[in-house]
Amino acid sequence: MSYDLASVSGQIAALADGAETPVTLAEQALERESANRDLNAFVALDPDIVLAQAEAAARRRKTGSAASPIDGVPIAVKDNYLTRDYPTTACSNALPADAGGIDATVVARLRAAGAVIFGKTNMHEWAYGATNSVSSFGPTRNPHDRDRITGGSSGGSAAAVASGIVGAALGSDTGGSIRIPAAACGIYGFKPGYGRASRNGVLALSWSLDAPGPLAARLDDIGHLLPFFLGRDRADPSTFAASPMRSADPVISPKLVSLTGSGLERSDDVEAAMQAALKQAGLAVPPVELTQVASYFAAWETILHCEATAYHRQRMAQDPAGFSAVTCAHLMAGSQLTAQELLEAQAIRTHFTELLLQSLGEWDALVLPTLPVVAPIAGEDWQAFGGRKVTTQDSMTWFCWIGNLAGLPAVTVPVPNPVSGLPVGMMLMGRPGRDEELLAIAGLMDRRINGKDRM
Amino acid sequence: MSYDLASVSGQIAALADGAETPVTLAEQALERESANRDLNAFVALDPDIVLAQAEAAARRRKTGSAASPIDGVPIAVKDNYLTRDYPTTACSNALPADAGGIDATVVARLRAAGAVIFGKTNMHEWAYGATNSVSSFGPTRNPHDRDRITGGSSGGSAAAVASGIVGAALGSDTGGSIRIPAAACGIYGFKPGYGRASRNGVLALSWSLDAPGPLAARLDDIGHLLPFFLGRDRADPSTFAASPMRSADPVISPKLVSLTGSGLERSDDVEAAMQAALKQAGLAVPPVELTQVASYFAAWETILHCEATAYHRQRMAQDPAGFSAVTCAHLMAGSQLTAQELLEAQAIRTHFTELLLQSLGEWDALVLPTLPVVAPIAGEDWQAFGGRKVTTQDSMTWFCWIGNLAGLPAVTVPVPNPVSGLPVGMMLMGRPGRDEELLAIAGLMDRRINGKDRM
Repeated sequence: MSYDLASVSGQIAALADGAETPVTLAEQALERESANRDLNAFVALDPDIVLAQAEAAARRRKTGSAASPIDGVPIAVKDNYLTRDYPTTACSNALPADAGGIDATVVARLRAAGAVIFGKTNMHEWAYGATNSVSSFGPTRNPHDRDRITGGSSGGSAAAVASGIVGAALGSDTGGSIRIPAAACGIYGFKPGYGRASRNGVLALSWSLDAPGPLAARLDDIGHLLPFFLGRDRADPSTFAASPMRSADPVISPKLVSLTGSGLERSDDVEAAMQAALKQAGLAVPPVELTQVASYFAAWETILHCEATAYHRQRMAQDPAGFSAVTCAHLMAGSQLTAQELLEAQAIRTHFTELLLQSLGEWDALVLPTLPVVAPIAGEDWQAFGGRKVTTQDSMTWFCWIGNLAGLPAVTVPVPNPVSGLPVGMMLMGRPGRDEELLAIAGLMDRRINGKDRM
Repeated sequence: MSYDLASVSGQIAALADGAETPVTLAEQALERESANRDLNAFVALDPDIVLAQAEAAARRRKTGSAASPIDGVPIAVKDNYLTRDYPTTACSNALPADAGGIDATVVARLRAAGAVIFGKTNMHEWAYGATNSVSSFGPTRNPHDRDRITGGSSGGSAAAVASGIVGAALGSDTGGSIRIPAAACGIYGFKPGYGRASRNGVLALSWSLDAPGPLAARLDDIGHLLPFFLGRDRADPSTFAASPMRSADPVISPKLVSLTGSGLERSDDVEAAMQAALKQAGLAVPPVELTQVASYFAAWETILHCEATAYHRQRMAQDPAGFSAVTCAHLMAGSQLTAQELLEAQAIRTHFTELLLQSLGEWDALVLPTLPVVAPIAGEDWQAFGGRKVTTQDSMTWFCWIGNLAGLPAVTVPVPNPVSGLPVGMMLMGRPGRDEELLAIAGLMDRRINGKDRM
């Protein structure tokens, strides 16, 4: 029997069958990391620390006392999650936000289940950008084409999974930072709905937009990791109303809707990949026009800059050299906005959320490309598509911010690209509190598009 | 049999028994209004409009087709609720916000039930103050002592009820504007929890703090009016999660807590009245210390000024003479605050709400005086109590803002004042969504303190 050892679910099966041990899995991951060091996926990784965890897991498994099915499975962690074993730098030049010693809640839950915490992954400085080109450890490279960016800010996590080093990695998402690199690197990424997942111990970017979540090689890997994210955490007040993970209600014929309009353009090859995938899935996705996209996007940006500036105010005063010039510029913008501008952005956000959830009619999932373009070539400052020319940064968050501004759960699923073969992601966004149903819909589409369950 | 015709419940009983008709009730109300014109409670009242409604109600009752138990009961309306029959000015010198023709949702619901909409009541300009001393129609006077203020901003509604003109009146509350004049005038006032009651057609002061609610002669009058306030209104997105009015869960021995600390002082006679009332009720109310009250109060003020400024921005540009000097100063302050200051206030608000609801332990109601002083003498700019000297404005909102900042339902119940005899109110604040249980607790205490059900 062969196992898909690039995935969490394959590793779980191989461990359960005794075909692999936690130590052999850790050694293979370390070897693949060495072989792919040019990706610059990891910023802290100590083989001794990894192997010590793997050996402890192996002992548990040998004595039949495995803590959980993932006991011994290596999981990589974005460098804005606090970890007991490594310092946390958010890939900035500032003093480490934490020197090590504490685990974020999600990391602690995984560790308690026996997962092997496999180093810290490279990210866009402070998660304040979507290219992964700005990092104190240098940019990450895309495993599908080393000349291309991974996207970000969870670019190291995406590169680590897409190159087969680990089956899953932790990320965080304020305007697409999980979904963008997952799509650009051809893997799966999931952002839970706002307030559903614990952020305790994950450095903030913008507290009303941030969500932590997994990137993974397969959609069922997301399912394996989700219980460690979802549910109430006494250390994170934003989760006080969160329900624990549950079984999805049956999804027979989900109502899908796509959004169109000025500000929602995409390149021809992304559109071709989307159409081919939807045809393959045999699902109707009627378009609904969304107007005033630019004002909603501006509201997202205003809230992001204001909250990030408040979060970094003290550090900016004490350690200004810890921020790149571009991040400084963002923080200056945030400090100059008025209360009236912020209030207007918050009011637009409320209106936008009501518009999506109430006025758009019934829907189970909104369907959009995750990115309007394939992974850009490193060094390209601009992207042209659909009659637009926008900064590479803006092209990365082009669709994803919608899920953060409205607090929706959102997942990206890789789909075949008949034009260039470079990864293309299809994004599905669900209703608040319906994370489980969204993943069930994504599973249905994934089987039809990428699996054997084709129509 | 005699009826308490100064109350809604007494009027309902008299109408049901045929002892009064809607026309006799309306005539008595008009007579009492004439006799108490020096209170300056009403700013728009047309006897013909009142009598036409009463006659229609009388016809319905004669033919056995009364629309509801309150069909024919006169209800006064604060001048910031839109009403079909009267213009709405918010007692400012600005052009009327509405020339008439539309009813606020609560007014429309009352009208559909047959209530006689009995004129518009005087209020503090734009509801932006708690004394009722600033109004384009001149100040209101306190029925208990014409030399004293009513408090505000729903001061006309309180004066109209306390002088027996009507059994109940509509008010609105952003930092105590229902509870303050109700307490100062010796009647009952109820502010629903945030998002529970429809604000459609009620002019805003600060949209994240505002709540509409009733002032009434008796606590059961509040119960008669509440179904017209509570529940989802398609025209008010803030109510989209509101549940309709329901029966209270049984309240056997409610857990009561009082708050103490710097910033929560009160005068000796108010404290004496509170202690006497609680002793009378035979209920233990252990004190819990609240620290940093000044920073929470400042957060409430910042949010209030920012939101009021945003709401009035256009009107301020077009019609600046429509604002008094003091209101202009507030709006200027709001326009100069930065996004960072507003964000900090919003973060403090979140912390404060969690503190009250989570960290304070279990409680069913927070118990405080509604005001730290009895109704101030008109023209007094300062109040001294508990070693403090504060502006009369700040003395009015002294305790009440807590309910708005945390979104709690809150009620004021008059209690005997053994020192001067002037009205003193006891405030009870409940947990969000537990408006009904709060009123049940207030009922228990009211019977023991003011009724025959004494221990």
